[in-house]
Amino acid sequence: MVQIATANPITKERFLDIRSRTEEICKSLKPEDVSIQPVDFVSPPKWHLAHTTWFFETFVLLKYKSNYQVFHKDFGYYFNSYYNNVGERVIRANRGMMTRPTLDEIIAYRAYVNEHIAQFLEDKVEKDICDVIEIGLQHEQQHQELLIYDIKYIFGHQPSFPKLDFEIKLESENSTQEFIKIDEGIYDIGHNENCFCWDNELGQHKVYLHGFEISNRLVTNKEYVEFIEAGGYQDFNLWHADGWDWIQSNQINAPLYWYKVDGKWMHYTLQGFKAIEANLPVNHLSFYEAFAFSQWIDMRLPTEFEWEVASPHLEYGQLWEWTNSAYLPYPNYSKAEGAIGEYNGKFMVNTMVMRGASVASPKGHCRPTYRNFFTPETRWQFSGIRLAR
Amino acid sequence: MVQIATANPITKERFLDIRSRTEEICKSLKPEDVSIQPVDFVSPPKWHLAHTTWFFETFVLLKYKSNYQVFHKDFGYYFNSYYNNVGERVIRANRGMMTRPTLDEIIAYRAYVNEHIAQFLEDKVEKDICDVIEIGLQHEQQHQELLIYDIKYIFGHQPSFPKLDFEIKLESENSTQEFIKIDEGIYDIGHNENCFCWDNELGQHKVYLHGFEISNRLVTNKEYVEFIEAGGYQDFNLWHADGWDWIQSNQINAPLYWYKVDGKWMHYTLQGFKAIEANLPVNHLSFYEAFAFSQWIDMRLPTEFEWEVASPHLEYGQLWEWTNSAYLPYPNYSKAEGAIGEYNGKFMVNTMVMRGASVASPKGHCRPTYRNFFTPETRWQFSGIRLAR
Amino acid sequence: MVQIATANPITKERFLDIRSRTEEICKSLKPEDVSIQPVDFVSPPKWHLAHTTWFFETFVLLKYKSNYQVFHKDFGYYFNSYYNNVGERVIRANRGMMTRPTLDEIIAYRAYVNEHIAQFLEDKVEKDICDVIEIGLQHEQQHQELLIYDIKYIFGHQPSFPKLDFEIKLESENSTQEFIKIDEGIYDIGHNENCFCWDNELGQHKVYLHGFEISNRLVTNKEYVEFIEAGGYQDFNLWHADGWDWIQSNQINAPLYWYKVDGKWMHYTLQGFKAIEANLPVNHLSFYEAFAFSQWIDMRLPTEFEWEVASPHLEYGQLWEWTNSAYLPYPNYSKAEGAIGEYNGKFMVNTMVMRGASVASPKGHCRPTYRNFFTPETRWQFSGIRLAR
Amino acid sequence: MVQIATANPITKERFLDIRSRTEEICKSLKPEDVSIQPVDFVSPPKWHLAHTTWFFETFVLLKYKSNYQVFHKDFGYYFNSYYNNVGERVIRANRGMMTRPTLDEIIAYRAYVNEHIAQFLEDKVEKDICDVIEIGLQHEQQHQELLIYDIKYIFGHQPSFPKLDFEIKLESENSTQEFIKIDEGIYDIGHNENCFCWDNELGQHKVYLHGFEISNRLVTNKEYVEFIEAGGYQDFNLWHADGWDWIQSNQINAPLYWYKVDGKWMHYTLQGFKAIEANLPVNHLSFYEAFAFSQWIDMRLPTEFEWEVASPHLEYGQLWEWTNSAYLPYPNYSKAEGAIGEYNGKFMVNTMVMRGASVASPKGHCRPTYRNFFTPETRWQFSGIRLAR
Repeated sequence: MVQIATANPITKERFLDIRSRTEEICKSLKPEDVSIQPVDFVSPPKWHLAHTTWFFETFVLLKYKSNYQVFHKDFGYYFNSYYNNVGERVIRANRGMMTRPTLDEIIAYRAYVNEHIAQFLEDKVEKDICDVIEIGLQHEQQHQELLIYDIKYIFGHQPSFPKLDFEIKLESENSTQEFIKIDEGIYDIGHNENCFCWDNELGQHKVYLHGFEISNRLVTNKEYVEFIEAGGYQDFNLWHADGWDWIQSNQINAPLYWYKVDGKWMHYTLQGFKAIEANLPVNHLSFYEAFAFSQWIDMRLPTEFEWEVASPHLEYGQLWEWTNSAYLPYPNYSKAEGAIGEYNGKFMVNTMVMRGASVASPKGHCRPTYRNFFTPETRWQFSGIRLAR
Repeated sequence: MVQIATANPITKERFLDIRSRTEEICKSLKPEDVSIQPVDFVSPPKWHLAHTTWFFETFVLLKYKSNYQVFHKDFGYYFNSYYNNVGERVIRANRGMMTRPTLDEIIAYRAYVNEHIAQFLEDKVEKDICDVIEIGLQHEQQHQELLIYDIKYIFGHQPSFPKLDFEIKLESENSTQEFIKIDEGIYDIGHNENCFCWDNELGQHKVYLHGFEISNRLVTNKEYVEFIEAGGYQDFNLWHADGWDWIQSNQINAPLYWYKVDGKWMHYTLQGFKAIEANLPVNHLSFYEAFAFSQWIDMRLPTEFEWEVASPHLEYGQLWEWTNSAYLPYPNYSKAEGAIGEYNGKFMVNTMVMRGASVASPKGHCRPTYRNFFTPETRWQFSGIRLAR
Repeated sequence: MVQIATANPITKERFLDIRSRTEEICKSLKPEDVSIQPVDFVSPPKWHLAHTTWFFETFVLLKYKSNYQVFHKDFGYYFNSYYNNVGERVIRANRGMMTRPTLDEIIAYRAYVNEHIAQFLEDKVEKDICDVIEIGLQHEQQHQELLIYDIKYIFGHQPSFPKLDFEIKLESENSTQEFIKIDEGIYDIGHNENCFCWDNELGQHKVYLHGFEISNRLVTNKEYVEFIEAGGYQDFNLWHADGWDWIQSNQINAPLYWYKVDGKWMHYTLQGFKAIEANLPVNHLSFYEAFAFSQWIDMRLPTEFEWEVASPHLEYGQLWEWTNSAYLPYPNYSKAEGAIGEYNGKFMVNTMVMRGASVASPKGHCRPTYRNFFTPETRWQFSGIRLAR
Repeated sequence: MVQIATANPITKERFLDIRSRTEEICKSLKPEDVSIQPVDFVSPPKWHLAHTTWFFETFVLLKYKSNYQVFHKDFGYYFNSYYNNVGERVIRANRGMMTRPTLDEIIAYRAYVNEHIAQFLEDKVEKDICDVIEIGLQHEQQHQELLIYDIKYIFGHQPSFPKLDFEIKLESENSTQEFIKIDEGIYDIGHNENCFCWDNELGQHKVYLHGFEISNRLVTNKEYVEFIEAGGYQDFNLWHADGWDWIQSNQINAPLYWYKVDGKWMHYTLQGFKAIEANLPVNHLSFYEAFAFSQWIDMRLPTEFEWEVASPHLEYGQLWEWTNSAYLPYPNYSKAEGAIGEYNGKFMVNTMVMRGASVASPKGHCRPTYRNFFTPETRWQFSGIRLAR
């Protein structure tokens, strides 16, 4: 989580703009919606609102603003996430126990911290404090995306299927499928541009790639329905051993949020419960499913290096794309000291890399070197398939 | 769940009075507080508010009020509890997933059903419909008590320890301990008075009791602290095998809500986080703990029959009192047909009887023949110890 | 576990006779069969052989025989069962880890202890040592019965369904069903005869019984198949809530060891895999199943007191019979001091009483006051149904 | 699992020699030792003996030997492992239920199949049948290594710590530590020699490596004790998030089989329970522990490509060495059709690559391109650390 000189300077306006988008996402939530945690990997929306604020309070105001008074003495304990270095924290699985502070109190907390940061930005701010604020903003934007995933999970798992009043829309994948050829050779991988990036993208280095081809578009709902109807979820030859166990023990037979109603595939979307549209890219797949589909169609998933090299030739940004690369450090990767260093490195085992971005990603979170990562069974994120061969 | 002629007739006033008390209990709850389910046996407060209303809608209005239009077509599915006979239901462990309908909608639902029942009660109502309404009111009152337990659990398991603005207060057990002697002989057990009772109290019958003595008061915090300090939680000779396993695997060493802070016993109460008061009756014990305490002090818990026979001589009503009786049917017990019959009989295994009542019990829920029951490890209910020998 | 003067004096011959029966039961076991523990509640046969021997070594030879040298210094640690008072022990769920000592070593251990006890019995032995030996023999006989259950479980859960070369055979229940009437009144319950009994039978006391009727025979396979075919396992009205959960989560739809093969009910018996015989008493039922059957046929299970009072009129001894009584202490029950006292009392919660005896019970373990007990879901014991109404 | 022309031709002698080594490993096992499965990932020794035999019977004799009569009609069902393509199988977690067939019967099964294969090898055998036999032999050798791990687990988890009468011995890592420098450049990875290899080694391809250094020896017990004593297991900064959870929930504070007795580190070895020797390479570490150690000492684990390129400069073969590479397919990897194809590919997720070989590896299973793989928490295999930087 180290950042280099950025094209977007830290200004009061940019800060408040990004911060307000978080609240914008939540504007149609009721207080009843914001404190539940239906499953361990989903956090209560209230928690996202508070935790992103805690970040600025802890790493900026408490460190650099003289005489800063915390909004509430216990919030540091309540809203730390997984930064073991910043002291005891409410464990992740218990976030959904905390009905207090209320949403209104959290909104007041946000306003209080916003005001203090805005004041702080009136004066000239040192480069390395700017860097921390930049990280805080990037961090907030990542939570904006998680918020959308978590709200969708909360709404999608109750019988009334509420809608979210915030524009998130997939486009059809209408292009005829073509395969782009990339030649064998040595390529540069990793970040070297003059803008923000995470520590896991740094350490530009060479990778030798053998020739390959990659699809110009994502797999569609229509294609995925064919896989289902052809018995893809019943043929163990297509699956990893762990994937097969996972579909067996969880009785998985379709993407998340899909239901077969009267012989027709329906799914929950943030615009409500709807019929599947054939040409939209298929969404909410685990790595296991993405892999099995690729086996069925006799192709494979690209590696993250192939993806990055091919990226100038691709249209992307609708859904995060599963790669067949495990999330591992680049040569010379070294994590930052202290709490900030806990952000990425400690997840570099048991996770797979996703590349691209999604319609839920904030502006500026879509770049060719961005490395997103999830455990292979997760699928509440916006996740699709691009084929390679 | 059969009721006999009742001293409290069904009137609009009585109906609305009982109904409004439920809302009174909840008046200091925030919407954030009402939709979480921190653990399987605790239901979200919103759910109690809705489920008790659903009872009147389903078993009274839909059955007996002509042209009744349900408030919302899906609420029957959402708020059924465990009545398998009334169709598919949201399973208990998922109640905490439902953030919608909101608290306001539930309050509107309550008002709507109240109004319809009130209208309905303007006219003369048949005896057996009155019986169903009576059951609905008794049921609502039982949920009032559960609401208090569940709110206490929700508030007591988060770091800010909120208070509840509703009067629930234990009195000191100041009387000098004395043991009341009951002679050997044949006694009548069970309900025969001219007022409401549950089906599990019916079937008055004879029981032969051998002579015994029973304490005039409950065990106090002071006495229980002595048990703790004497190593009661470390001596397996005092415990049932299952009780010993339970304290080992859950690392239990004090009643629920107790914490040792700087060498002093503190506990969460609905009035906040406080020091233990020596003369209050010890509360929030499991059957296992109540039993172990009785062994330690070389006495025993009374049976439910002993308790009932001794009851005219006792002051009770502060805390439910664990007996050493398993919850089993009385001779000639037969459960009612259909959904109503599911209320009591199907729990007659693996549970222990509690007798008396608690400060959280609504008026009229304290009678000598009342049989409450819980599994032996539960202790979020208001539960204490009376000794026998 | 206190015994009174016994009609069967302790002699070398009686001692060796009972001890050799244990080995007789195991004579067709292979060494491969004796060290596995397929499920927590089943112990490896080797463990039974050793543990019963350890009892005599620990409570007789080490206490009363001067200069006794233990067979092996670590066996005390290996083969203690659940006597917390006798020091650290190999926990129950890990018994199946111990492949050593081998069966031959255990047989040698048995011979060694037998020889020492036999020597010891050459001389006149004090009454209270005789009492301990008597308990050891009774204890060994209880393990003989458990051995048969455990071997059946081990053999019945593997694809080759081995046979046991030891005579255990059920007889047909051919009598026409009749119901024996017992009058209302006061009856004596508990043990007062001049022979061995367990502590849980002591404390003879009066019980008031209301009039009832009890069947002259056990429920047969034929009758139970009717219950299955009538959908008994699908009708939740017949089941306790816990029973319903149990059949759902374990997908239970027939007694243990039953399989439907080509439309015909088959079961594993110690004589091999066979078709069900219509007139044999139905075996291997949990309490939940016994209860559900009784509901279906519109009767009930007797209480243990009804059973005991009716026992002179009954033929019993084929299968242990579930009663609707929880296993609780009799008035004035007090457990013995120390390790011996751990035998019965600590199981007096969450278990149900079975009365009678089974074809797997050793001679002398069938008496009207005998109280056997199991948790309600267990059914690897020989367990059947007698109806009351 | 494709093999190319092999330097070791298939002969009767070589076949019988490899087969007899399996029995040699088991020669000091008692029948009691061979049928237990103490934990899911450990198989009963008897099962290894039978399963490797089943391989030859199923894939060679049944396919290619005319009129071959199976030894026993049910063994195919009993001893299939995870080949979903060969029909229903006894699930892995239940292997420890099967006490029958006995060890003697399995030995007879081995002899029977050996004899038939030996006969079969008297005549000239086609190349592709030879290939299958070669795979069977390699497969048997892999099970020889697993057998040693599993026996160690079985013996190391019981209080008597039995010894294994089969020579397995680690040597001291006495060389002074030096770091071998490897230059940046393009290197060939994967198998191309004229001998057997697994399918996962095939597809020789180019990899671009940046310059690095790698240690000439493994980490020793002495060094690892320093890590422990320095609080390595208490410092979350050194661990992956999943690793930290794993040590917390399993209370891990030392390698598998290590115990601190009277302030001194002891461990179970196949030669018995012994004091740790300072200069032996540290064994029985999970990937998480190997990684944390490398962080503590401010270095890292090599990737599998670095390891392979450096291998001509290294002494290896004492312990499998954890790399920081996830187990993934090489470019152009394609799994074989049918059952044989299930061997490797389906494990290419959630596992990490180990390189080298161990003292438990059979001759011929040590080559620079060999890719072993395990989930990151496993450590019953012989597993150590080589550092890179």
